[in-house]
Amino acid sequence: MPLAAQGEKDTKSDTWLPSLMTETPQEGFELAITLARKGVTSTQSNKEVLFREREEYSQDADSLIHASEVIAAYFQTVAAANDYWK
Amino acid sequence: MPLAAQGEKDTKSDTWLPSLMTETPQEGFELAITLARKGVTSTQSNKEVLFREREEYSQDADSLIHASEVIAAYFQTVAAANDYWK
Amino acid sequence: MPLAAQGEKDTKSDTWLPSLMTETPQEGFELAITLARKGVTSTQSNKEVLFREREEYSQDADSLIHASEVIAAYFQTVAAANDYWK
Amino acid sequence: MPLAAQGEKDTKSDTWLPSLMTETPQEGFELAITLARKGVTSTQSNKEVLFREREEYSQDADSLIHASEVIAAYFQTVAAANDYWK
Amino acid sequence: MPLAAQGEKDTKSDTWLPSLMTETPQEGFELAITLARKGVTSTQSNKEVLFREREEYSQDADSLIHASEVIAAYFQTVAAANDYWK
Amino acid sequence: MPLAAQGEKDTKSDTWLPSLMTETPQEGFELAITLARKGVTSTQSNKEVLFREREEYSQDADSLIHASEVIAAYFQTVAAANDYWK
Repeated sequence: MPLAAQGEKDTKSDTWLPSLMTETPQEGFELAITLARKGVTSTQSNKEVLFREREEYSQDADSLIHASEVIAAYFQTVAAANDYWK
Repeated sequence: MPLAAQGEKDTKSDTWLPSLMTETPQEGFELAITLARKGVTSTQSNKEVLFREREEYSQDADSLIHASEVIAAYFQTVAAANDYWK
Repeated sequence: MPLAAQGEKDTKSDTWLPSLMTETPQEGFELAITLARKGVTSTQSNKEVLFREREEYSQDADSLIHASEVIAAYFQTVAAANDYWK
Repeated sequence: MPLAAQGEKDTKSDTWLPSLMTETPQEGFELAITLARKGVTSTQSNKEVLFREREEYSQDADSLIHASEVIAAYFQTVAAANDYWK
Repeated sequence: MPLAAQGEKDTKSDTWLPSLMTETPQEGFELAITLARKGVTSTQSNKEVLFREREEYSQDADSLIHASEVIAAYFQTVAAANDYWK
Repeated sequence: MPLAAQGEKDTKSDTWLPSLMTETPQEGFELAITLARKGVTSTQSNKEVLFREREEYSQDADSLIHASEVIAAYFQTVAAANDYWK
């Protein structure tokens, strides 16, 4: 089924997202990167495939811009959660 | 009609989304994945097609990034619903 | 003119969106699907074209993910309108 | 210059967006379609080109889904402006 | 480096965005177009390239819809800044 | 792994995002560009690849529009953080 992977069950037992709160905006940005990756690995958990595909897309400007766009979407949520670290 | 599937009626009778509230951010992330999937299956409910297509797109970096982007959009809503689990 | 269809006038006289309020999150999700479809049919109202195109795109993983993304965008609005069914 | 058209100046003198307020959600949806179109015509105001391109993209499922996505983005703004017609 | 242009420094000294406030929604829409263009020229400031590319993309329906989408994203911010001109 | 780069660790020790606050909307726009770039370099930190890819995509209208879209997404967050510089 699209957006589902057999293997993801294993990792679900681990707590990887206890909170959206971070000390600083920069840590919030790093959390956004983590969330973006998790969105990828929850769809494809096979590391061999992930590394092979990474090799390709990280060489392509459009994919890099797209990756930044996805991080931006998660960063919106993390920043709002932290009341923008005001 | 685009964005409509004959077969979706059957599943509509089931309650699959009683609430947007979750205990933790991580459960909220999992709910976002569920919503992203539901958005797919409400358009194409044929499981054979879904599995065949999954095989392909889960091997493609751009599709994986796109999947993460869709999860991000649903996660924004789930996180706001839970007042960011503050 | 892009984003405009000759035939759409006919349907405009009908009330199809009296409110954004729904009883449950699930009904809100279904309303989001309705809005996503309306966004399509307001651009192309020819049912023959719609059915022919549906046949194709519903077989394509990227299109299915894209459809879920559009539903997510409408769901953000519907969920906010309902104060997230808190 | 991208996102700029020589001819757009002419139409700028007309008032076409006096307010984001509408009586009903449905009128709000129609305003969102108007805004989406304006975003197109402010970039390309040549009607011949617009009609020719419309012929093509309105026959393509991905373009139709994309059009619905753009309407969704404007609808978010219009709905917020109207406090979701509560 | 992606999303960076050698030549942009020159224009940075000018004030081109003193405020997000506008008198009317329509002026807000025009500011959104300005912001969308600035997002383009901050990446590519060479006017020859910009004009050449404009010639092409303004003839393509998908690019026009995409341009409208980008304007929508900036308009969300401008509209919120103006409390939706209520 | 997609959205991850071996080399990024080195730069993580530096503080590059102490705050989302800026004096003016224009400085906020520049911060949005910085965030968009950081989203790119956190995925691909090899400068040779970045410069080579930049050469290509900055010549392509669709990529330029896409870049502006990503900046818009970060600008939404920065503007909200600054209460829209009201």
